[in-house]
Amino acid sequence: MTPGDTPEKKKKMEDNVLAEETSIYVHNPYLEKMKEDILYHFALGTGTHDFQALFGDIKFVCVGGSPSRMKTFIRYIAEELETGSPNCDYPNICAGTDRYAMYKAGPVLSVSHGMGIPSIAIMLHELIKLLHHSKCSDVTIVRIGTSGGIGLAPGSVVITKQSVDATFKPQFEQVVLGKSVFRNTDLDDKLAEDLLKCAKELDEFNTVIGNTMCTLDFYEGQARLDGAICSYTEEEKLQYLQAAHKAGVRNIEMESSVFAAMCNVSGIRGAVVCVTLLDRLEGDQISTPHDVLSEYQKRPQKLVGHLIKKQLKKK
Amino acid sequence: MTPGDTPEKKKKMEDNVLAEETSIYVHNPYLEKMKEDILYHFALGTGTHDFQALFGDIKFVCVGGSPSRMKTFIRYIAEELETGSPNCDYPNICAGTDRYAMYKAGPVLSVSHGMGIPSIAIMLHELIKLLHHSKCSDVTIVRIGTSGGIGLAPGSVVITKQSVDATFKPQFEQVVLGKSVFRNTDLDDKLAEDLLKCAKELDEFNTVIGNTMCTLDFYEGQARLDGAICSYTEEEKLQYLQAAHKAGVRNIEMESSVFAAMCNVSGIRGAVVCVTLLDRLEGDQISTPHDVLSEYQKRPQKLVGHLIKKQLKKK
Repeated sequence: MTPGDTPEKKKKMEDNVLAEETSIYVHNPYLEKMKEDILYHFALGTGTHDFQALFGDIKFVCVGGSPSRMKTFIRYIAEELETGSPNCDYPNICAGTDRYAMYKAGPVLSVSHGMGIPSIAIMLHELIKLLHHSKCSDVTIVRIGTSGGIGLAPGSVVITKQSVDATFKPQFEQVVLGKSVFRNTDLDDKLAEDLLKCAKELDEFNTVIGNTMCTLDFYEGQARLDGAICSYTEEEKLQYLQAAHKAGVRNIEMESSVFAAMCNVSGIRGAVVCVTLLDRLEGDQISTPHDVLSEYQKRPQKLVGHLIKKQLKKK
Repeated sequence: MTPGDTPEKKKKMEDNVLAEETSIYVHNPYLEKMKEDILYHFALGTGTHDFQALFGDIKFVCVGGSPSRMKTFIRYIAEELETGSPNCDYPNICAGTDRYAMYKAGPVLSVSHGMGIPSIAIMLHELIKLLHHSKCSDVTIVRIGTSGGIGLAPGSVVITKQSVDATFKPQFEQVVLGKSVFRNTDLDDKLAEDLLKCAKELDEFNTVIGNTMCTLDFYEGQARLDGAICSYTEEEKLQYLQAAHKAGVRNIEMESSVFAAMCNVSGIRGAVVCVTLLDRLEGDQISTPHDVLSEYQKRPQKLVGHLIKKQLKKK
């Protein structure tokens, strides 16, 4: 919803969301008029692919930055859910492009999104249209990622309550036709609580619910001292990170705000689950050995895998 | 340079830039104090790799979104420069990660940067540090990419004069410790003219110098009617794109502003050369056949290849 909407239009949108609360809400009147929809960055199109046959059964979508991590995840979840035969391969559904990678195992879709808000936003636009065209219902989307922690032991997992911007405000600024529109970045409370419960059941690593700061830059935007440009002192850096901690921020990453905003606009249950690779109050460089980092990166996968298994058993 | 800098500091920075005008300027006093520098997203580090031996001879760096396109480019340029033996393979220097791909042939480095400002910014921070640690001098960086054109026949190539934001201002907003800093987004005039001259010599496709609008979003941010969210009318879309054209904008992409800003801060000659895949005044979807798009994408490569060959012959 944008600030320019009339009260009537807002009311109508809310009614639509209520009436179809388990479907994917596409907030675009032009979409239905298109004869064909080409999802360019997925190399998929409604004119060339039968979306309902390919994707109609999807109930969970897991997204993460790295294509290889999302391939690892689909193998892991297929094993957990026993959906495929052993040694079964999971071909990349987006093989026609190298912008994103996409894998499917039963009701679970795994998609890479690259790094940063613009990259995940392109993917989410095309994913939401894909789910809409496929007539999917009751879908949960979870971002499983990596992040820098604030005041947490490395390897801790943070489930995001709100995604906040670089001034610690829970909002996402979307520029539309050159004008700023601010969108809500709350994530689904119930889903966050369910995930925390899963973490307690697993009891394998420290997991907390907290706010996540989402920045447009990894170096200057996150107050690092090790970029090619740095115009502040170590003291100013620490003051900034401590202020973030005081505002409830427990980790920093680069995709959660637009993820939360787009889930909210589209009426999709969403969660962000990131492992912290380091404690930013202690340093900037990620110097932990490769095998330790690999194990850390599996933690969000394990947590979300546990949730998916539990929720599918209920049905 | 940030608004908070004292006149003395500014003067000192300018002197440094003049004194070492052909070197890579790293605007970060903390960097020299580090015992080791891990370029995490390249999976390279000064403690594990001999940067000067690996990269010291680099004179041209070409960057582009797609990893496979950057592999195609390195094969093309190696053939043009006759640097390698026939059928020689070019291994990915960043094989330890799937965040970016990097290839080298003689004095040319080819690096992928993903999509969007945050993704290219991470790459540029680590690239600039790599060039600095490698003691490279007299380096030219060119982004070769794809874009949406405004009022140009698809397949036209735009050499960027200035990168402008969504309100058509030639500036890049960098958030540092939660506060906005605005940086210059002019690109090197002489290099742009040299490239235009190369285009005339090649005489194979329409090439213009113009302004490039750089947005944080591909759908709403570029006034598309085919995203998962669209809250404006077709008329409002066209008004916005026509206003952009009137302001000198000839194409729209998602990386040029931070590219120009970081080249300026670091004293590196930079150019942005993008082919237009469609005319946004005519539509939003990229429905051109795959083989035509492939040929379009080779145009910036050809143009930059021609420039590199010419400039290396001069030396």
